[in-house]
Amino acid sequence: MNSNNGITILKIGGSVITDKRSEDGLAWEEEIVRIAREISGFEGKLIIVHGAGSYGHPQAKRYALTEGFHAEGAVVTHNAVKALNRIVVGILNDEGVNAISVHPMCCTVAKNGRISDMYLGSIRLMLEKGLVPVLHGDVVMDEVKGVSIISGDQVIPYLATQLKASRIGVGSAADGVFDDKGVTIPVITSMNFDEIKAYIGGSAGTDVTGGMLGKVLEMLELGKTSSITSYIFNATVVGSVSSFLNGENIGTAIKDS
Amino acid sequence: MNSNNGITILKIGGSVITDKRSEDGLAWEEEIVRIAREISGFEGKLIIVHGAGSYGHPQAKRYALTEGFHAEGAVVTHNAVKALNRIVVGILNDEGVNAISVHPMCCTVAKNGRISDMYLGSIRLMLEKGLVPVLHGDVVMDEVKGVSIISGDQVIPYLATQLKASRIGVGSAADGVFDDKGVTIPVITSMNFDEIKAYIGGSAGTDVTGGMLGKVLEMLELGKTSSITSYIFNATVVGSVSSFLNGENIGTAIKDS
Repeated sequence: MNSNNGITILKIGGSVITDKRSEDGLAWEEEIVRIAREISGFEGKLIIVHGAGSYGHPQAKRYALTEGFHAEGAVVTHNAVKALNRIVVGILNDEGVNAISVHPMCCTVAKNGRISDMYLGSIRLMLEKGLVPVLHGDVVMDEVKGVSIISGDQVIPYLATQLKASRIGVGSAADGVFDDKGVTIPVITSMNFDEIKAYIGGSAGTDVTGGMLGKVLEMLELGKTSSITSYIFNATVVGSVSSFLNGENIGTAIKDS
Repeated sequence: MNSNNGITILKIGGSVITDKRSEDGLAWEEEIVRIAREISGFEGKLIIVHGAGSYGHPQAKRYALTEGFHAEGAVVTHNAVKALNRIVVGILNDEGVNAISVHPMCCTVAKNGRISDMYLGSIRLMLEKGLVPVLHGDVVMDEVKGVSIISGDQVIPYLATQLKASRIGVGSAADGVFDDKGVTIPVITSMNFDEIKAYIGGSAGTDVTGGMLGKVLEMLELGKTSSITSYIFNATVVGSVSSFLNGENIGTAIKDS
């Protein structure tokens, strides 16, 4: 395994572990088991962030949470994604990963839809003690909007910057970012982004947080501010998660230049 | 209802809502429903903190968590009390309270068993928006011991001090604090504490956090530092929770002088 002493952040997309066409949350538990087994051999410091998929996006739409504050909607949407997190963390522990939930709702404040403050004291100590914090896209309190939805794709660059992560993998349901001919683009930088932006779509199914274009934008910004390279790869492919954790450069690399 | 504009903190003891003799967590759901209905009319800013009861204490003992760090023990114990919190928050919402979980594990760091840091940004905004944060006794990361157990009785004075709460009620399974003849002591201050200390026992059943004596010590300290009066009352009595929320002084009052 990778001898890297830094922090690795692994995103598991909502489309990898849930059926995004479901209106009420349907988890692909066999896929979660497979991914948990690929993670279980990893010995470095690891943070996992998973998407909400059908545990959160449909609920957020139903209550129009992106439009404004709705107390019941916030509670229902948050509880939906917590239910998925419980499945993920349960399976990770079954497979030998000392995973522990960190719910952004408990430790994060946003301002107009962007994270303005996230408490990292617990996460730092978890990493020191060999625990694996598992975060997720969530509803969080917002100083301006009351509540807002923070995608996993926004949590990752925040954590990466604050904790000086060394390696980021964004496991999605596609082989990477495609060009107009459906071929994976190997590298995206701020130099070629404008040219290829038009090819990059949203995600299939219900997604209130911006799909693939949202991911690329977050990772480009991260490359700019922290010189970290992120990899968007296909986590539905058997072995891809362990390949990433082993230090291989797979999928599309996103960096500043 | 009480016209108080300040923050009220209500503790619901683990012995009120669970069978503490159980080794694996047994919740008294009918009691939780009754208490949730007594809470549902309250219009002020409210924080609820519940004990772990048999969802946490037996697990913590099994893994000897007070003796030292144990990754699996921390995860299992934390997940046990989260399961109770899910029941409590679910019933509160069913009864019309916009309750939302705040797990200390996600937002608290301890130092040698005492809270050294708790993130309050989310809680402050929840209170502003009319949501009711529901915290609980929990396992949290500890800078010295790896993890430690933070009782609800420790969370309350911390929150009360930091958020300048105006009213604290500790709903336990006894009518208050008893003297040597089994009569409820109406007021405990630092003046009479030494004299009555000997009467005050631990709690019945499994409790790793100090029982009634622990509660009184926390509340006395709070009276000393913040001039807040706390009430220990019997939350198993029908109507007691709404009496407290209505501003009545029930049970044993604990204050500095």
